[in-house]
Amino acid sequence: MSFLRNAWYCAGFTSDVAGENLYAITMLGEPLVLFRGADGKVTALADRCPHRFAPLSMGKVCEGQVQCPYHGLRFDAQGGCSHNPHGDGSIPKAAQVRAYPATEKHGAVWVWMGDPSRATAAALPDFSAIDERPGWTRVQGRLTVQANYQLVIDNLLDLTHAPYLHPFLASAEPPPPDFRPDIRMEQEGDSVLAINEFHRMPTTPLYRMLWERGEPPQHSTLRANMRWDAPSVLLLDTGASPSGAPREDGPSAPSAHWLTPESDTSTHYFWAAARDRYVGNAEVSAQMAGGIDAAFRQEDEPMIEACQRRMGGTDLISLKPVLLVTDGPAMRARRILSQRIEAEGV
Amino acid sequence: MSFLRNAWYCAGFTSDVAGENLYAITMLGEPLVLFRGADGKVTALADRCPHRFAPLSMGKVCEGQVQCPYHGLRFDAQGGCSHNPHGDGSIPKAAQVRAYPATEKHGAVWVWMGDPSRATAAALPDFSAIDERPGWTRVQGRLTVQANYQLVIDNLLDLTHAPYLHPFLASAEPPPPDFRPDIRMEQEGDSVLAINEFHRMPTTPLYRMLWERGEPPQHSTLRANMRWDAPSVLLLDTGASPSGAPREDGPSAPSAHWLTPESDTSTHYFWAAARDRYVGNAEVSAQMAGGIDAAFRQEDEPMIEACQRRMGGTDLISLKPVLLVTDGPAMRARRILSQRIEAEGV
Amino acid sequence: MSFLRNAWYCAGFTSDVAGENLYAITMLGEPLVLFRGADGKVTALADRCPHRFAPLSMGKVCEGQVQCPYHGLRFDAQGGCSHNPHGDGSIPKAAQVRAYPATEKHGAVWVWMGDPSRATAAALPDFSAIDERPGWTRVQGRLTVQANYQLVIDNLLDLTHAPYLHPFLASAEPPPPDFRPDIRMEQEGDSVLAINEFHRMPTTPLYRMLWERGEPPQHSTLRANMRWDAPSVLLLDTGASPSGAPREDGPSAPSAHWLTPESDTSTHYFWAAARDRYVGNAEVSAQMAGGIDAAFRQEDEPMIEACQRRMGGTDLISLKPVLLVTDGPAMRARRILSQRIEAEGV
Repeated sequence: MSFLRNAWYCAGFTSDVAGENLYAITMLGEPLVLFRGADGKVTALADRCPHRFAPLSMGKVCEGQVQCPYHGLRFDAQGGCSHNPHGDGSIPKAAQVRAYPATEKHGAVWVWMGDPSRATAAALPDFSAIDERPGWTRVQGRLTVQANYQLVIDNLLDLTHAPYLHPFLASAEPPPPDFRPDIRMEQEGDSVLAINEFHRMPTTPLYRMLWERGEPPQHSTLRANMRWDAPSVLLLDTGASPSGAPREDGPSAPSAHWLTPESDTSTHYFWAAARDRYVGNAEVSAQMAGGIDAAFRQEDEPMIEACQRRMGGTDLISLKPVLLVTDGPAMRARRILSQRIEAEGV
Repeated sequence: MSFLRNAWYCAGFTSDVAGENLYAITMLGEPLVLFRGADGKVTALADRCPHRFAPLSMGKVCEGQVQCPYHGLRFDAQGGCSHNPHGDGSIPKAAQVRAYPATEKHGAVWVWMGDPSRATAAALPDFSAIDERPGWTRVQGRLTVQANYQLVIDNLLDLTHAPYLHPFLASAEPPPPDFRPDIRMEQEGDSVLAINEFHRMPTTPLYRMLWERGEPPQHSTLRANMRWDAPSVLLLDTGASPSGAPREDGPSAPSAHWLTPESDTSTHYFWAAARDRYVGNAEVSAQMAGGIDAAFRQEDEPMIEACQRRMGGTDLISLKPVLLVTDGPAMRARRILSQRIEAEGV
Repeated sequence: MSFLRNAWYCAGFTSDVAGENLYAITMLGEPLVLFRGADGKVTALADRCPHRFAPLSMGKVCEGQVQCPYHGLRFDAQGGCSHNPHGDGSIPKAAQVRAYPATEKHGAVWVWMGDPSRATAAALPDFSAIDERPGWTRVQGRLTVQANYQLVIDNLLDLTHAPYLHPFLASAEPPPPDFRPDIRMEQEGDSVLAINEFHRMPTTPLYRMLWERGEPPQHSTLRANMRWDAPSVLLLDTGASPSGAPREDGPSAPSAHWLTPESDTSTHYFWAAARDRYVGNAEVSAQMAGGIDAAFRQEDEPMIEACQRRMGGTDLISLKPVLLVTDGPAMRARRILSQRIEAEGV
């Protein structure tokens, strides 16, 4: 397993690490335990006691520290052993677990898997488009995909799969003669943008549902522009607007897609989606969360997992895939990521 | 995995590949998809799109071609990509999947796993004994055994296991003093015959049930002659007849046993059995199909799988089994098969 | 897998090998079948027919011998083939399975996994403390732990885990000011003793329940002294008595812990516990058996298995665990065992 280490990976939502809860998650093959200290800040430690290798996450939080479930050693926010209840209570020097920098942003908990001295807030791309805020309502969810995280990125950076996998998201009607698709790639720094804009597109069922203000037009401009940043965090700017009108005249539903490798062949997939229509409407929120969850679980996930199985344990590139023009953004992202992993020289 | 490549393997029954159905099966470790073209002929292709490695069998049949479920590429009967819905629609030269020769015979679909130029109808042994035809009724079924296919061949070529595994097929009564078993091996070309003939045998429950014309005799001549051909297709000529009378005076129930390796340690087992008594009688057909299925699933399969587990991943021969005289046919078949695999020089 | 071979391992309780039952168990990675011969003595054979490698344990006992379920070969108490029902009935010289020395003691069946000529009754440590006898009642049980047997030994030789894993066995009240714990290690020959004695200890709920004769005292002397012998058989001498009084004045509840590696990462755990209070009381027996079983299954087992998972396939020592003073007995036992395995030079 070779992953980018100096990066923020999403470990969960802020509500996953609440009260005296010990939250366990395996990231990049490493088991972690997260909990809040006495000051409310999130601590992320290696989830393995150095004594007998018990998972600390089976223990409990005592005064803002984690107590091992097996023999009661305690560890503080820096991963140091702070209490040994046995013998004369002396603490062996080696009684230390790895502590990972952790922070909270955009409603999620982020863990830095590399050199702690290089962890900076600036290294996390901006996802404020999906923040809960006045005029916007947010839904979120998670799933685990039994496939390498790069296959999930590939899926997100090539949305031409939509008509084949997602009938509800696609339009039932054929596009009119003056239909113009605009599909292209851009790169800004190390960010890759997969632009998908459709002019004179039959308005899709999703945007008809979200239109809210007046009758949805027969045709509209539809955008689904995906932004990828290393290692595996994506922002989808999507919405529909009347032809020629500003985007605010139609609904927007941006979404974040935060992928965290659990192992080489499984991926934690955290998502959050905001909208500027039917704000605060719980029924629409439930429909939207349910619809996204269903599309991921019933349509994308089985396909990505089937591809992974057909690839065996082999990497995509070494299987020499036939590439189409629509693979451009995914291939660009793979090249950037691979260069950055190589640059870490691990 | 080392298999005989230049041979026909049974992929299923003709009814498995019907209408616009995409039929998936893994043979010799290779996933295949089978479907009927516009002309009704069966096409067999590698079940993996060369673009993103999606299983084509998850897609659909469009105008006699298979459309990939992920991004919509289409492939024709020769495995060539015939349609790319993306960009300018140009088709990359490498967009090609392997096509396997396929044919239909004896109610089954056969796939040639080796060099297509060597595929000939003559390479398939004759199984017309089990064809549906006037005066005969046929039943069929399938199962998957979690064991190497050669262990299943061994089982079929040494029917002395019957009294231990199959109480219903054996006789409850002890044989009379003038009972004469005739168990021997013959070889005709590369076919191996395991002859099992029993004279003055107490008529077994199965043949009492199938007798139909008058009272079954107390004793009869019972035959269970198994013919094996490489790689793994067997025909059992079995029936009972009054002592000294022609075989037509008693019931015959020949059966085919077509074994197709799924992997080194699992085997597709297709079977078909005909009979010349109670022709067209659905109740007897149901009883017969149920009885065969039960004997395979509840008696042979658990035993063969238990042997496989006890052997670990090791080959039978390298474990140096103690051989009995009754292992003759199975050992002969193994030798012929091994020579033919070696001759292919793969 | 490297195990001590010249040693008695517990294969089960005497009642597991009863009547014409074929009892199967895998020990040290080797599948065994146990049954009683015509003379009632236990026979232990390799559970794999040398002909087609069928598990003999799927067969049946015929006249004190085991008959293979597949083709009917029979094997006697020495593992020799005694009957071949096929052909002329001659028996191939190689038709022989390994026979293991077996004996019965302390209500259990013991199998010698090494050189048969070195098997002596003296090699089994004394466990008469847990025998069923006048004045004592015994309960017993078994479980299988998905962890290396040495992790289970470690657990038993360091009972300081009790307050963390076993709240019922620990005391709810804080110890008084004059409480004196006496925790130390002794070695007698190759036996390791982990002494745990607590003076002026609040009497624990278990001993309050077992006290029987008069009111249990508020405080008592509690002992939990564990004896380990190679490879993996342990005796716990435990009981409570009034401070300064002889141990007979309070209840004793010694228990045996017989661990038999099934594989490198799974362990058969047989236990038996006697008591000298409420003798013959079935209700107390049920409570005691249930309590021990619950503590093992719900408290120790999940923890030991979690440690094993966190260790991956790696050995404890090579992971360089941080050691506490309380690890002394376990480390001593590991060293003795490792020296004895090395001395066998396998």
